[in-house]
Amino acid sequence: MHFEHNDKTRAYMEQLTAFMAEHVAPAEHGYHHRNQQHEHADWRRWEVQPVINELKIKAREQGLWNLFLPDAELGAGLTTVEYAPLAEIMGRSLIAPEIFNCNAPDTGNMEVLYHFGSDQQKQNWLVPLLAGDIRSVFCMTEPDVASSDATNMQATIKEEGDEIVVQGRKWWSTGVGHPDAKFAIVMGVSLPEAKKHAQHSMVIVPLDAPGVEIERMLPAFGSYDAPYGHGEVSFNQVRVPKANLIGELGAGFAIAQGRLGPGRVHHCMRALGAAEKALELMIRRGMQRQAFGQPLIKLGGNQERIAEHRMAIDQARLYTLYAADKIDRLGVKHAMSEISGIKVVVPNVLQRVVDDAIQLHGGAGLSQDVPLTALFTLARALRLADGPDEVHRAMVARTELRHYMKGEGA
Amino acid sequence: MHFEHNDKTRAYMEQLTAFMAEHVAPAEHGYHHRNQQHEHADWRRWEVQPVINELKIKAREQGLWNLFLPDAELGAGLTTVEYAPLAEIMGRSLIAPEIFNCNAPDTGNMEVLYHFGSDQQKQNWLVPLLAGDIRSVFCMTEPDVASSDATNMQATIKEEGDEIVVQGRKWWSTGVGHPDAKFAIVMGVSLPEAKKHAQHSMVIVPLDAPGVEIERMLPAFGSYDAPYGHGEVSFNQVRVPKANLIGELGAGFAIAQGRLGPGRVHHCMRALGAAEKALELMIRRGMQRQAFGQPLIKLGGNQERIAEHRMAIDQARLYTLYAADKIDRLGVKHAMSEISGIKVVVPNVLQRVVDDAIQLHGGAGLSQDVPLTALFTLARALRLADGPDEVHRAMVARTELRHYMKGEGA
Amino acid sequence: MHFEHNDKTRAYMEQLTAFMAEHVAPAEHGYHHRNQQHEHADWRRWEVQPVINELKIKAREQGLWNLFLPDAELGAGLTTVEYAPLAEIMGRSLIAPEIFNCNAPDTGNMEVLYHFGSDQQKQNWLVPLLAGDIRSVFCMTEPDVASSDATNMQATIKEEGDEIVVQGRKWWSTGVGHPDAKFAIVMGVSLPEAKKHAQHSMVIVPLDAPGVEIERMLPAFGSYDAPYGHGEVSFNQVRVPKANLIGELGAGFAIAQGRLGPGRVHHCMRALGAAEKALELMIRRGMQRQAFGQPLIKLGGNQERIAEHRMAIDQARLYTLYAADKIDRLGVKHAMSEISGIKVVVPNVLQRVVDDAIQLHGGAGLSQDVPLTALFTLARALRLADGPDEVHRAMVARTELRHYMKGEGA
Amino acid sequence: MHFEHNDKTRAYMEQLTAFMAEHVAPAEHGYHHRNQQHEHADWRRWEVQPVINELKIKAREQGLWNLFLPDAELGAGLTTVEYAPLAEIMGRSLIAPEIFNCNAPDTGNMEVLYHFGSDQQKQNWLVPLLAGDIRSVFCMTEPDVASSDATNMQATIKEEGDEIVVQGRKWWSTGVGHPDAKFAIVMGVSLPEAKKHAQHSMVIVPLDAPGVEIERMLPAFGSYDAPYGHGEVSFNQVRVPKANLIGELGAGFAIAQGRLGPGRVHHCMRALGAAEKALELMIRRGMQRQAFGQPLIKLGGNQERIAEHRMAIDQARLYTLYAADKIDRLGVKHAMSEISGIKVVVPNVLQRVVDDAIQLHGGAGLSQDVPLTALFTLARALRLADGPDEVHRAMVARTELRHYMKGEGA
Repeated sequence: MHFEHNDKTRAYMEQLTAFMAEHVAPAEHGYHHRNQQHEHADWRRWEVQPVINELKIKAREQGLWNLFLPDAELGAGLTTVEYAPLAEIMGRSLIAPEIFNCNAPDTGNMEVLYHFGSDQQKQNWLVPLLAGDIRSVFCMTEPDVASSDATNMQATIKEEGDEIVVQGRKWWSTGVGHPDAKFAIVMGVSLPEAKKHAQHSMVIVPLDAPGVEIERMLPAFGSYDAPYGHGEVSFNQVRVPKANLIGELGAGFAIAQGRLGPGRVHHCMRALGAAEKALELMIRRGMQRQAFGQPLIKLGGNQERIAEHRMAIDQARLYTLYAADKIDRLGVKHAMSEISGIKVVVPNVLQRVVDDAIQLHGGAGLSQDVPLTALFTLARALRLADGPDEVHRAMVARTELRHYMKGEGA
Repeated sequence: MHFEHNDKTRAYMEQLTAFMAEHVAPAEHGYHHRNQQHEHADWRRWEVQPVINELKIKAREQGLWNLFLPDAELGAGLTTVEYAPLAEIMGRSLIAPEIFNCNAPDTGNMEVLYHFGSDQQKQNWLVPLLAGDIRSVFCMTEPDVASSDATNMQATIKEEGDEIVVQGRKWWSTGVGHPDAKFAIVMGVSLPEAKKHAQHSMVIVPLDAPGVEIERMLPAFGSYDAPYGHGEVSFNQVRVPKANLIGELGAGFAIAQGRLGPGRVHHCMRALGAAEKALELMIRRGMQRQAFGQPLIKLGGNQERIAEHRMAIDQARLYTLYAADKIDRLGVKHAMSEISGIKVVVPNVLQRVVDDAIQLHGGAGLSQDVPLTALFTLARALRLADGPDEVHRAMVARTELRHYMKGEGA
Repeated sequence: MHFEHNDKTRAYMEQLTAFMAEHVAPAEHGYHHRNQQHEHADWRRWEVQPVINELKIKAREQGLWNLFLPDAELGAGLTTVEYAPLAEIMGRSLIAPEIFNCNAPDTGNMEVLYHFGSDQQKQNWLVPLLAGDIRSVFCMTEPDVASSDATNMQATIKEEGDEIVVQGRKWWSTGVGHPDAKFAIVMGVSLPEAKKHAQHSMVIVPLDAPGVEIERMLPAFGSYDAPYGHGEVSFNQVRVPKANLIGELGAGFAIAQGRLGPGRVHHCMRALGAAEKALELMIRRGMQRQAFGQPLIKLGGNQERIAEHRMAIDQARLYTLYAADKIDRLGVKHAMSEISGIKVVVPNVLQRVVDDAIQLHGGAGLSQDVPLTALFTLARALRLADGPDEVHRAMVARTELRHYMKGEGA
Repeated sequence: MHFEHNDKTRAYMEQLTAFMAEHVAPAEHGYHHRNQQHEHADWRRWEVQPVINELKIKAREQGLWNLFLPDAELGAGLTTVEYAPLAEIMGRSLIAPEIFNCNAPDTGNMEVLYHFGSDQQKQNWLVPLLAGDIRSVFCMTEPDVASSDATNMQATIKEEGDEIVVQGRKWWSTGVGHPDAKFAIVMGVSLPEAKKHAQHSMVIVPLDAPGVEIERMLPAFGSYDAPYGHGEVSFNQVRVPKANLIGELGAGFAIAQGRLGPGRVHHCMRALGAAEKALELMIRRGMQRQAFGQPLIKLGGNQERIAEHRMAIDQARLYTLYAADKIDRLGVKHAMSEISGIKVVVPNVLQRVVDDAIQLHGGAGLSQDVPLTALFTLARALRLADGPDEVHRAMVARTELRHYMKGEGA
């Protein structure tokens, strides 16, 4: 039981914090200001702002690149628990993760290819992703069914001769609007007669394959998240070579599960960075503005709220690091309760902090003068993305009750 | 103690409900779809969709017009408590209030002019507002100070010879982007040496007066609320005739207070209509979608949440009607606790209902396929507009404690 | 829609308030002080303190007697909504309801006998209850099953010749420890083959009938509620004349339902009186005690809490009165959602108010120097008595969803 | 960052768990049953049940004794973080802590004497405490002032010649009713002119000193916690030798602060053990009882609640261990935010878990058939004892804001 980060982690934390202060923070306001005007243009005209590519080069030069990848050569060789505080630091800015090539869904896709991809798949898709030259998409959720129950999935991935045929409709396919997005990893049903968790497959589909149609971009709370975007995509009898199949037919669930553990830790740690940012904005505003002869922060229950948020954030961080440590030591399968638990706790903490931060800002909190509504949208979307709160609470409960069914007691 | 609406009210409720079903509901989806594309254009190009004007004519023909105004000739002669359920019905649609000429801030401005305006002011501004020919703005909140404390106000309204000179900067001036918006009622400090509540004045400022500059439109959660808009407006030594002053110099607070009581009831009842709408969407979705072999509504705590929302909405409605009744019977001054209380309770109920409704919709809930994020934004903004929750809680507490300070007991 | 009590009600409210101030309040402290020592003695030695009987005589002389009973001759002829505010006033004191012969479970039993009893039953049991000469018990809940599901009930009520045989075990039989308790109304299964709601019967069982055994008194949070008590009672082949059956075999559920509507309103209004009392104690303490240079009430979020409680109590009261009005106008069957709704809302409001009141009192709040833990226990027990929160939330949800199943919409 | 307990800790955990299962659990029910009857007798007749002393001997033989004390010779040489999980295990039973000589307030008093006592004080008081031969009391809180603000303290500790004179009134003096209680450590004001935190002193007062009067025992939620008790004690010109002063005059605050850090960790870990116990009871009950054709645990939101409690407990435990680790590594002064934070978080988690556990038990939950109301009382009292929630939230907020006042940012 030891709560200090090790020397390697601390060195990265310092370097990353310095980079954020020197390069990222000064770029933020201008970036978002320009983006607002861009955001509502036809997504086919979305562009990457030059500052992103400039900062990517700088980050890569400093070795702040692919830090999420546990491989020591391709990434930084960090464990989940070592990378976690770095994800938190990146999470303080909405543009930072991409700058360090550590943004979702590319990180998850890279992990899938790294762990389960064939050599050819790695060569074709992993290498350019690791270089930050292309971007990718993960297509899972569907518009016509409750995706919280994976057995509802309707998209199909069928073998036909030497080819794989993909048919279906996906949405909330994040990143599909990005000019550099080249392929999607698509999940679908291949073996409907097999056991529940052996029916699905994952396949790599280039976005320019015939039959791939990006129907529209979906706004979340009115925001399109340009130039990434969340797309609704139809796959109309899309044919790709069999070599694009990741692993075997029916292996989709197993791959997904391996992908999700560290990915959720990353999401949660970034969300905690966002929560710290929101709390900081809340406090600064509360100390600056005066009403009734006092700084706002001194009025009514504001200090109690600051305390509640500090306690909630600190607990949520420890819980996330604990989940990360369990993944590292025992593997994802033995950390299912915690992986689901943090997915419920952290976005809800973020939502509450941001909601109060908006409140203390008054009207400004609703506007784009501060990034609070963007952080709120992030929190609100995270409560649905990658499984709604309800599914994760059910997982935590199921794990808990299992102790008693075996007659073991707690 | 009698909880039924009277015959007059019930007749209006039926007629209005029928109009909503026949005319408003079918127009909604198309309206919002077209508006999304419009919304992010330069606000100077915003237009009113023809359907609104068509429906305004229909509504007026049916006598569903200016129902908010207690005057029997100019309006419908309804008391606050009689009008309240009509406001709730309108609140089920974001476009309905304007169709019936019952939308904020015009209703509040009309009430101010009706009660406090000179004959000339009524002729010039009230008559066309009542006819729905022009629109108006209310300028109160300022960007540079905490407006929750009215004594922070920096804008000035000074007498200079036969003129009134307005100087200052306002924001969240709702409706200022509308092509038909013709004037603003502006509040500012006139007599800084007077007692706290006798310093402010209200003056009518035509939007085309020299020195009025609409700097930008502010988005709330990314939405511009076109074609109304929430503007930031600077008043640079704007000169208007003294005849534009409403009441006397220093009368601003008294006028504002009279304006606020019924206005808050209207806001709250509309918000309750929105909450009912959100609850309806939540239930319908929960009954349609299946997961784990059951309709979503049957899973986990979903029915408990439905029950909690029903209980909260019903209580909040009764509380609002009670406040309305106190205003009607005893006057605004004797209903201060309730007027503040409903302002806290109702938007928070709406926010919670909508948040859960989004959750049950999954990803769709975040998108524009359903109006939930718009309703959420409405709720979130209402918790700040017209005094943040904290100020209203303080008012309720102050009223409560006053019983004890006088040594009266409860 | 009219929120004022009528003249008759207001007159009773004044008279009752005066009686409470003049006679009940001065007796309270001494009563509870003496009772604490009594409380943990063997319940067979419990006695009624003389002050109760003295005040009963005074109350009866003033006509403040049986106010709950809608019959104009036997009671005061008040409707549910007219009686409700009187129940609230009584609820401010834990000893008041009995003084006015308006305490549970006697009121519910009197209503059952009044509405469903035979002439002989009325003569034998209702007349002395109305006179306050005897007391009674209601035996429903059982220790061995989840009583929230009435179909779990195990006790049986069988016809054998001219007799009724009662067999089973009940607990939380409130009032069974009282020296004047003479009979119980017992519910049990008679017709297990009948439809779900036609299986149960109610029968009058004298407590001195052979086979009735009071096994023990149950403490709630350590308190025995002497001299009433909550007993565990076994009925071992208890035989009573058939004339003791209330209504017919199988009529138990129908009777119970009629009994519950007004009874829940009474419970809830008394609980609101208790909540007002707790809020008053909280405010008085907060104004008296000083810390960090200010009265406690001014510190941190205390005023926000006062405001939240005021808003919650006012809403809960309106909701309860609304339920009462629906019962009066439309009947219990058309007020099922509200009758369940208030049963959830009010005890939870009371629990929260008392919890905060305890907090503001510091250590004293936990002690018997103030009645707060007794009020807390009342709230906590009410969340279980007469159906746990969960069953009532389910009823509210079921009623809500039914609108949609019929395809009616909201 | 390493979340596993070390080998030494794990060995103790196993041994302690086995002892609890083998010796403590079987004794519990009988203990509490007997105690209920004892509880309300005159406290002067309270006795220690023989089983406690028998188990103390067994525990001591096994080396499960004074585990809280960091000294390797007198205790087990465990750090705060090493002892913490052992405190949690003990916390699953209300009688366990004393059996292992690890119960409050003796542990805190032993720590004070260990760190600050003179050799003579250690000989006279620490040695028999460590042997479990006597018990002790800590007298801090006062009935006449808000003790949340220590500067309100009225008791005085004055030097007069070779003696110390203690004058004042204390309450909630836990343990003072125990037949073996021999002395109290009393805090009072000595130097009213000194700086705020240099005014108070601590002195050892034998309970049989002339002028010490135990006025009464205070019940918490009706329970007297026999044979410990929470007493109201007056000190009427009580004279003790100067050698009884702990440290110097004016050193009271500094000593108190050193005492509080580890003590709060112990309290919180025991409370987490209690929360685990309550959750276990809730789940077991929910799996056994049936309603509406299913085990209760499957109904409505029950599984969500189980999940929420699991997530809350796990987070609270990590937070407490983190605080313990900061105390060990950096010292109490650098862990003030966390020491206050856990004091708020943990008792509130416990209260919520127990409240839901009571609810799932129905009426039984209120009775003494299960220990839930006792655990509830523990939680409720902990939210006041040793500083109310509000004072600790204020400490967390103050620490948070301090970062910004120094202009450092987060």
